[in-house]
Amino acid sequence: MDRDRRRQQYEQATQWPMIGLAVLFVVAYAWRVLGVGLPGWVETTLGLVTVAVWPVFLADYLVRLVLAERRWRFVRTNWVDGVAVLLPLLRPLRIISLVRVARVIDRRLATDLHGRVAGYVTVSASLVVFMAALAVLDAERGAPDANITDFGDAVWWAITTISTVGYGDRYPVTGEGRVVAVLLMLAGIALLGVVTAAVASWFVDRVSDARDGESDDLRAEVRELAAEVRALRAELPGRDLTPGR
Amino acid sequence: MDRDRRRQQYEQATQWPMIGLAVLFVVAYAWRVLGVGLPGWVETTLGLVTVAVWPVFLADYLVRLVLAERRWRFVRTNWVDGVAVLLPLLRPLRIISLVRVARVIDRRLATDLHGRVAGYVTVSASLVVFMAALAVLDAERGAPDANITDFGDAVWWAITTISTVGYGDRYPVTGEGRVVAVLLMLAGIALLGVVTAAVASWFVDRVSDARDGESDDLRAEVRELAAEVRALRAELPGRDLTPGR
Amino acid sequence: MDRDRRRQQYEQATQWPMIGLAVLFVVAYAWRVLGVGLPGWVETTLGLVTVAVWPVFLADYLVRLVLAERRWRFVRTNWVDGVAVLLPLLRPLRIISLVRVARVIDRRLATDLHGRVAGYVTVSASLVVFMAALAVLDAERGAPDANITDFGDAVWWAITTISTVGYGDRYPVTGEGRVVAVLLMLAGIALLGVVTAAVASWFVDRVSDARDGESDDLRAEVRELAAEVRALRAELPGRDLTPGR
Amino acid sequence: MDRDRRRQQYEQATQWPMIGLAVLFVVAYAWRVLGVGLPGWVETTLGLVTVAVWPVFLADYLVRLVLAERRWRFVRTNWVDGVAVLLPLLRPLRIISLVRVARVIDRRLATDLHGRVAGYVTVSASLVVFMAALAVLDAERGAPDANITDFGDAVWWAITTISTVGYGDRYPVTGEGRVVAVLLMLAGIALLGVVTAAVASWFVDRVSDARDGESDDLRAEVRELAAEVRALRAELPGRDLTPGR
Repeated sequence: MDRDRRRQQYEQATQWPMIGLAVLFVVAYAWRVLGVGLPGWVETTLGLVTVAVWPVFLADYLVRLVLAERRWRFVRTNWVDGVAVLLPLLRPLRIISLVRVARVIDRRLATDLHGRVAGYVTVSASLVVFMAALAVLDAERGAPDANITDFGDAVWWAITTISTVGYGDRYPVTGEGRVVAVLLMLAGIALLGVVTAAVASWFVDRVSDARDGESDDLRAEVRELAAEVRALRAELPGRDLTPGR
Repeated sequence: MDRDRRRQQYEQATQWPMIGLAVLFVVAYAWRVLGVGLPGWVETTLGLVTVAVWPVFLADYLVRLVLAERRWRFVRTNWVDGVAVLLPLLRPLRIISLVRVARVIDRRLATDLHGRVAGYVTVSASLVVFMAALAVLDAERGAPDANITDFGDAVWWAITTISTVGYGDRYPVTGEGRVVAVLLMLAGIALLGVVTAAVASWFVDRVSDARDGESDDLRAEVRELAAEVRALRAELPGRDLTPGR
Repeated sequence: MDRDRRRQQYEQATQWPMIGLAVLFVVAYAWRVLGVGLPGWVETTLGLVTVAVWPVFLADYLVRLVLAERRWRFVRTNWVDGVAVLLPLLRPLRIISLVRVARVIDRRLATDLHGRVAGYVTVSASLVVFMAALAVLDAERGAPDANITDFGDAVWWAITTISTVGYGDRYPVTGEGRVVAVLLMLAGIALLGVVTAAVASWFVDRVSDARDGESDDLRAEVRELAAEVRALRAELPGRDLTPGR
Repeated sequence: MDRDRRRQQYEQATQWPMIGLAVLFVVAYAWRVLGVGLPGWVETTLGLVTVAVWPVFLADYLVRLVLAERRWRFVRTNWVDGVAVLLPLLRPLRIISLVRVARVIDRRLATDLHGRVAGYVTVSASLVVFMAALAVLDAERGAPDANITDFGDAVWWAITTISTVGYGDRYPVTGEGRVVAVLLMLAGIALLGVVTAAVASWFVDRVSDARDGESDDLRAEVRELAAEVRALRAELPGRDLTPGR
């Protein structure tokens, strides 16, 4: 309990710096990949920044893990942060914690599960597509028989992949590019699953509203019964005047 | 409350004109795209009509927004209309409000959630495919390496995309065409989600019917108990004849 | 009520002949499409059979519709039969009513919603793939730039389409072939929806089982209360010996 | 009952040997397919091992079937094992029973339906992709116009297929390869279904938690009523001191 409170204090103190680092990582990575004809020292610096961010993310994760009361539970509920440590590509997902910040600001979001899910899905799908496009472009650009050669193509390919449409007009041919593709496909399956599930739960909710009426009927009958018992008690011949409760 | 009533009056008064405008937009756009060898002045007029419709849609949306009691709620529950203002392609979705009209006419539809969803899905998927085919044809036709060059191909491509099949025998190569494709893919994911959710909620409903039996059992027991209490009251020695309630 | 009983009598009397006709249609159609180098009179006869089956299906549907107590309800609950009248391709779906026959034989199936759905899905998906492969082969074979030219290719194409994988190594190029493809894609979306929904409802069922425990707790409490009331009644001083109910 | 206990004893005794056989099968099959330039006798031995495993699997299945109390139920609840007998490709799925072993070790898994499903899905999807890649490589390698010619390509193709993306840059051209592809597509549909269903049931669960509050309210009212009745009983004039229950 005590340790968990310290973890929360730590997380509140480091939230904004960590989001800042994630943004820095995205900017440096995007600049390095998209900036054509950069001077050598700029490219080196950008590369150093993207690499240097990693130990900070790792240390942050380990500190939080050590401070957590129940470690296994921490790993499971914060799996996005764990993945962000392992896969640089997914590091910007750290920015999603901004949704949590938004939730504190806008009270409505705190109770609206579907709205919150829509927010998470939109933000993370966009981030994943953007990072995957950068990563695949970085991997494919040098390959001789590559067909993904500029950023427009890369974004287009990423969207056709995450939506599981997969025309096949663009596809990765290098090993790194294919690894990026596999992660995107997993994201696509998850995306489809979450969208469907959100719609389905909204539906079931609507149908349940009708059922709730029945539950209310039951409550009304229990109340009526209670009134009957109270009346019975009031009529008792030998009743004293002190209440039963 | 008062303002919301005025909004409803406004909406009832403008519903048919707005549907008419949406139809006019579709006809003008389709004519301009599909009509080969139109005289110059006809093409100019049709282009003007498609452009002139936009400020009317925007004004209508803003008036309704201003009249709405709770603005944020209005934006969320009428997001289709908002999207129709931003994306000309989706403007004909305004026609979907016809389903609402049909609901008033056919009482059965008003209570049949699944039937209504089927109606919405069929009408909007058809409209989206039709408009996307027109838009992609308009965008691709001029490109030198395009493979979507007639309306048949465009419709075929739109259907393979929205169903996420994506053969890749036809695909857009221009930026505008790809934007249309991305919107279609989003529509495809939503389509899959809604169809699955409708089937799933029907299933859960069926299974819940069995559970409802149990809830009925509980009610029967509560009723039996109430009868017991009533009998008890009737047997009381010092009872008077006035009812307890 | 009376009319609906007559409809059921009619349906029981015609069920087997209609299934026989559906089988005959499939056999004749498959023979005509797959039989290379058939003598002219055989091909003419097979063509005649496939055509002659249609008015019988139409007449059967109309008779059942006329005999139905509530016509709109009949159209909705028997939409598969209606589709089978309109689309020759889907005529063999009539064979699915065999599942209904199997249900009568095997009592277990009658109560097992998930098992029944699995049966329907397997049988209809197989039939749809088989018929679509025949139809697309029939349509494409004559086209000069077709890439679906033998039955193996046609079945392979049909499966890649219904599963929404869509490699694009085979795809229809004729108008008829594309219509078949669109129907297959719709079937694929429905297939995905039904499979997902069946799994989801099984899940929700499992989770609900845990909740049911809570409902049982409530019933236990109501029963305890009833025992209390009964005990109270037994203790009453002025009680007579006739039961309250 | 007696026979079912003997079946359980048999299953406990043979579980580890059968898992060992499944692993042996995978190793031998992978070695034979991936090992280029193996001496003739090694290839023959590996081929013999993969074939010899089959009768053992069949015998094991039949023994368990014979020992089962209710045979039809056994076939249905152990359909994975039945499929593993029929399709060599799916034999390693026997390894999934390790998840059952893990469940006994880790108590948390035993109650966590979603975690368990995530485990099953990850393990079986990985196994299916790995075996399908081996099988398709084995089938395609010899074909003259094949485009899946090394293991990297085969794994890449298997993943694009199971995720239903289907770029079409790689696809099987032989009959055996296409059969493998069809099984993979079925696995992909099932995968999508299970992922979506797990997410959906988690959602519905969350929404139900809110509803549970209402059920708790009802229980509180029933308890209050019981207290009322107990108070009534305590107040009775002619009460004796023996408890009612």
